[in-house]
Amino acid sequence: MAVNGHAVNGDAGTPESNVDVLIIGAGPAGLMAAAWMAHCGVKARIVDKRGTKVFCGQADGLQVRSLEILESLGFADRVWKEANHMIEICMWNPGSDGIIRRSDRIPDTIVGLSRFQQIVLNQGRMERFFLDNIAKHSKNTIQVERGVLPESLEIDESKVEDDSAYPVTVKLRHLTEEEATPAQQISASKVSDGLFRSNLVKEDDEDDLIRKSQSRPGTGEVVHAKYVIGCDGARSWTRRALGFELQGEATDFIWGVMDIIPITDFPDIRMRCAIHSAENGSLMVIPRENKLVRLYIQLKEVVPDESGRADRSKITPEIIFAAAQKILSPYKIDYEYCDWWTAYQIGQRVGTNFDAHERVFLAGDAVHTHSPKAGQGMNVSMQDCYNLGWKVALVARGIAKRNILSTYQSERRRVAQDLIDFDHRFSRLFSGRPAKDVMDAEGVSMEVFKDAFEKGNLFASGLSVNYGPSPLVLKAGDASAQGDGSKVVAAPSTSGDAFAKAQALAPGLPVGMRFNSYKVLDQASARPWHFQEKLKADGRFRIILFAGNVLSASQKPRVDRFCERLNAPDAFLRAVTPKDAPIDSVIEVLTVHAAKRTETELLRDFPEILHPFDKHTGWDYDKVFVDDVSYHEGFGNAYGNYGIDKERGCVVVARPDQYVGYVGELEDFDALQKYFEGFLVFPSAAAS
Amino acid sequence: MAVNGHAVNGDAGTPESNVDVLIIGAGPAGLMAAAWMAHCGVKARIVDKRGTKVFCGQADGLQVRSLEILESLGFADRVWKEANHMIEICMWNPGSDGIIRRSDRIPDTIVGLSRFQQIVLNQGRMERFFLDNIAKHSKNTIQVERGVLPESLEIDESKVEDDSAYPVTVKLRHLTEEEATPAQQISASKVSDGLFRSNLVKEDDEDDLIRKSQSRPGTGEVVHAKYVIGCDGARSWTRRALGFELQGEATDFIWGVMDIIPITDFPDIRMRCAIHSAENGSLMVIPRENKLVRLYIQLKEVVPDESGRADRSKITPEIIFAAAQKILSPYKIDYEYCDWWTAYQIGQRVGTNFDAHERVFLAGDAVHTHSPKAGQGMNVSMQDCYNLGWKVALVARGIAKRNILSTYQSERRRVAQDLIDFDHRFSRLFSGRPAKDVMDAEGVSMEVFKDAFEKGNLFASGLSVNYGPSPLVLKAGDASAQGDGSKVVAAPSTSGDAFAKAQALAPGLPVGMRFNSYKVLDQASARPWHFQEKLKADGRFRIILFAGNVLSASQKPRVDRFCERLNAPDAFLRAVTPKDAPIDSVIEVLTVHAAKRTETELLRDFPEILHPFDKHTGWDYDKVFVDDVSYHEGFGNAYGNYGIDKERGCVVVARPDQYVGYVGELEDFDALQKYFEGFLVFPSAAAS
Repeated sequence: MAVNGHAVNGDAGTPESNVDVLIIGAGPAGLMAAAWMAHCGVKARIVDKRGTKVFCGQADGLQVRSLEILESLGFADRVWKEANHMIEICMWNPGSDGIIRRSDRIPDTIVGLSRFQQIVLNQGRMERFFLDNIAKHSKNTIQVERGVLPESLEIDESKVEDDSAYPVTVKLRHLTEEEATPAQQISASKVSDGLFRSNLVKEDDEDDLIRKSQSRPGTGEVVHAKYVIGCDGARSWTRRALGFELQGEATDFIWGVMDIIPITDFPDIRMRCAIHSAENGSLMVIPRENKLVRLYIQLKEVVPDESGRADRSKITPEIIFAAAQKILSPYKIDYEYCDWWTAYQIGQRVGTNFDAHERVFLAGDAVHTHSPKAGQGMNVSMQDCYNLGWKVALVARGIAKRNILSTYQSERRRVAQDLIDFDHRFSRLFSGRPAKDVMDAEGVSMEVFKDAFEKGNLFASGLSVNYGPSPLVLKAGDASAQGDGSKVVAAPSTSGDAFAKAQALAPGLPVGMRFNSYKVLDQASARPWHFQEKLKADGRFRIILFAGNVLSASQKPRVDRFCERLNAPDAFLRAVTPKDAPIDSVIEVLTVHAAKRTETELLRDFPEILHPFDKHTGWDYDKVFVDDVSYHEGFGNAYGNYGIDKERGCVVVARPDQYVGYVGELEDFDALQKYFEGFLVFPSAAAS
Repeated sequence: MAVNGHAVNGDAGTPESNVDVLIIGAGPAGLMAAAWMAHCGVKARIVDKRGTKVFCGQADGLQVRSLEILESLGFADRVWKEANHMIEICMWNPGSDGIIRRSDRIPDTIVGLSRFQQIVLNQGRMERFFLDNIAKHSKNTIQVERGVLPESLEIDESKVEDDSAYPVTVKLRHLTEEEATPAQQISASKVSDGLFRSNLVKEDDEDDLIRKSQSRPGTGEVVHAKYVIGCDGARSWTRRALGFELQGEATDFIWGVMDIIPITDFPDIRMRCAIHSAENGSLMVIPRENKLVRLYIQLKEVVPDESGRADRSKITPEIIFAAAQKILSPYKIDYEYCDWWTAYQIGQRVGTNFDAHERVFLAGDAVHTHSPKAGQGMNVSMQDCYNLGWKVALVARGIAKRNILSTYQSERRRVAQDLIDFDHRFSRLFSGRPAKDVMDAEGVSMEVFKDAFEKGNLFASGLSVNYGPSPLVLKAGDASAQGDGSKVVAAPSTSGDAFAKAQALAPGLPVGMRFNSYKVLDQASARPWHFQEKLKADGRFRIILFAGNVLSASQKPRVDRFCERLNAPDAFLRAVTPKDAPIDSVIEVLTVHAAKRTETELLRDFPEILHPFDKHTGWDYDKVFVDDVSYHEGFGNAYGNYGIDKERGCVVVARPDQYVGYVGELEDFDALQKYFEGFLVFPSAAAS
């Protein structure tokens, strides 16, 4: 398939090279993909056409699930420390006199949902943390190559099923610094200008760059990649090179955004606020780090033209801020410092295809766009690549079969659709005029709005995602039904009854959802850990043996028997582990038991496979945990919260991205074996 | 005063310069001093004779108070994340059969004492974090100058009371790389060698270096300093240059230390253990980061010679490890990797003088040495400079009077004495042979040992320090009595009755002790903070107005009246603030009120002085807090825990190092004024 009109040829003057994974675009999605490659030891490159990273503005909301993910990469603490924490949402609506007043307060994150709460931090800092993390874990072998533009992309279809082939050929052009620096509009006011990043701007910057770079022969290169991941934003070059489209529509709602240090007497300026004025439109307040506040401001006076696009020349910071002042009246607001501003027209679109031949993938804004106000954009984009990255990495390394790659679209397109449905409902409620009374059918009822907001909070946390059945998710249901148009390899057949029985062993760990976290203690050191802290993003699957009461005469033989089968030379664990590699290289076995810590001893009460011996460094002291009371951090009650029987326990599998893939009894070893056989490569001759 | 036999002269070839503060030695004490200078914006230099920082070994224990301090500097989180957390202490003693067995478990940190617990991390990482923090806060103007040796020190006594003078002259020599790298013994075993750092080695390295550098003319420089802080360790050049001595004695107990990755069947190797064997001596296990374990091993077979010093040639890693194996028998222990090792003879010594003319100060090991096993060394050294640094910084900047400098010795020499008494008792109990039975009077009773350990835990946390009366600590008592030989400027007179009445307003905030921390909520954003997080190390004093129930008709006028006096042009707050500087530059006013958060509004219910307005950035939203329930982090109950009346409140002052300096009623404004007049410079003509 030759695309984009360019034939790739490796003529004498053009350097050629191979790489396992080429990532196009170094925003949060692309950086997440690069982080996986760094953490999994995969040879990868990441290129971005811009000359620098983002420094201010752009996305800022980080939901609970994103923080869990960043913790698995090792830098949630940096984000948590610098971010502003949003605690409370205040709703402001017109009273019967038409003057806005606070009508409600609700917690911004549902209480008890997670150890994290929703926070905000500008995208530039996020990118900084990603870059540091990628450099550390790749030992500086993966670094963003900036000012590099893809010019053509070709997939050799004859080789797409060949594990050793590099079927994707991409021609790259290295730009001059001038080319890589987009022109910035200088504003008349004392604010820096972000309008050039807005979706109201015609897509001229990259076209212009491509034209320029094509006139500079001799600065190109040809890259042959096993996999390409396109994370190049709403105007994705990769998507257009593949000939794929986004489907959906724009609304008539035009919004402005400003990051300012406000000077105001509005009492809730450090709270997240949803403000509906009687006649002047709506405004959202997002308090930010470093005294900044982001305002999302509805621009009722700017309307789209016949083509459906708003007239860009009409939108200035003065227009936007005047609208904010009207909405907030009778409160006064002003500013001296503006960090960033932009304007956008709400539109909801989703891509028809998330991949081409499971060799070229699209992620983030390249396959779904929506309004930014729900704080979802950066999150869902990162989560796309958190889902995709380990799959590509494990296949590239020869650990997993190619069949897991089709689950990217089947798992993530559903999330994108849900997001767009959510955004559609939410945007209309938020942009609508508040109802004057119960008879005002055209207005939005503030009761309905509050209700939608509260219900939306669970969705907005990112914790309601529930992946359907597939080789990676052993649960009942029709694997193809959730595929959303894409092929999905059928999961091992599971009857509804059998699955219900298995799921009942751990109702608090629903198969298909992320592994919820409670505190447990390290058996050897008594240190409390949130269990999720032990599910690091290193590409390993994890079997969590909930061993129950290991000191009981009836349970101990069950644990011993399970470990015996696990340890057998022909069982999956040894079969999938490369020769001479540690036994926990591909699948790590973690144990959480429920006997009393002080009556239990690691070396005496647990089979060796649960705390493997290394002749250089001795026993492994970091794999067996206990559900018991801590001295300083209370009692996690993990068994109780997961709904697991404290005597008999069960066996759970967490995927590398912390989603639950399997639940079963200790005796269901054959099912466990079959689960892993469904998608892992068994290099050992001993494997079935 | 010309010392050390060298006259300083600025001959033509030798560069001369002025600096406010010169710090000699870049271990944890020196780095803490440098951190204060960086945080307070003082011009400073820090030199160290060694060519590199420490990378492994050395001190490792960090007590609770040290973590609070590191948080005030901004990097406790990095330490907390990398460190090993010690949770439980296991005591092992011989049974009636003479074989060791676990007799007790106790929590390593007293439950409920702090939000932190004791942790361990090697000194090299601590130094790294300090260096990063100093670079950030000084904008790279303070960087450790390595391979720089002081050669002479002279104090011009005629200028020591002159605030604008640079009365201390130090001649420095820049070493070659070879000179700055101490010779390392290469061990025959597969371990790196740390013996050269031991106190058993004759002090030849620096003498040798001085000799060498003196033969290299033309590489020196002359520095004129306002203040010099000597943090150059147990063999302090600065101390000897001043002619000061340590007093105390060595014991006969010889100990070895090894940082290894153990291969062992000893069950508690990841717990902190105190092990007394029947006949083979004692051993302490300190589990560390990265699979390391530190072993402190009593060497019963190495004895001091007639001079009281042990024969160094006898001590090898093999000897030390063989002793460990004997003590741990019948358990087996071995290792392949050793990160560091050393040996030492326990001695307890304290300096007679902590300063010369309040111009040259000594801190850390330079003025007190003791055994390392209680994990106190790095902590007390850092805490010396946490006490000293802000005092020197504020005097150097002209904010505080020189009279606060004498409180360094009066406050810290008592702590050093207490430490040495503690170490003396603890070392003898730990090094002694366990008693065979109650009739065995020469042996150490294991009951007595456990009791001492538990009691020692509060001392070891660093939270029991209680500074005596002085201009900085307004409490009853004889200011000179606790001066420990040094002069102390008398505190404003306070009768015992008056002080008891004041202290009763906040019994949970004892004057002279560190400001204990509970969670409070930011009034403007509802975010929970540990209150201590708001007491950052930036050199500012803080008035904490416990405003009580600001919504009550009887309390509101009291708060208004207090704020009126505070805001008066002739009161201390405006008087100590430099012209054109923000009102919170020298003293910051924080408020914690006890009305219901949702019924209270920052701009409506609090006088402006409590949330000052800035014409560029608007109101200050980060100074008023409320003692109320949070959504996600419970209820701090600060008023209840501090014992403060929820209606009437009180006024408390925290020094820049978080120690409580003053407690009084809202009406005791004259006493508060007098307190600050006692030690702050009042540049404003309006000041009395």
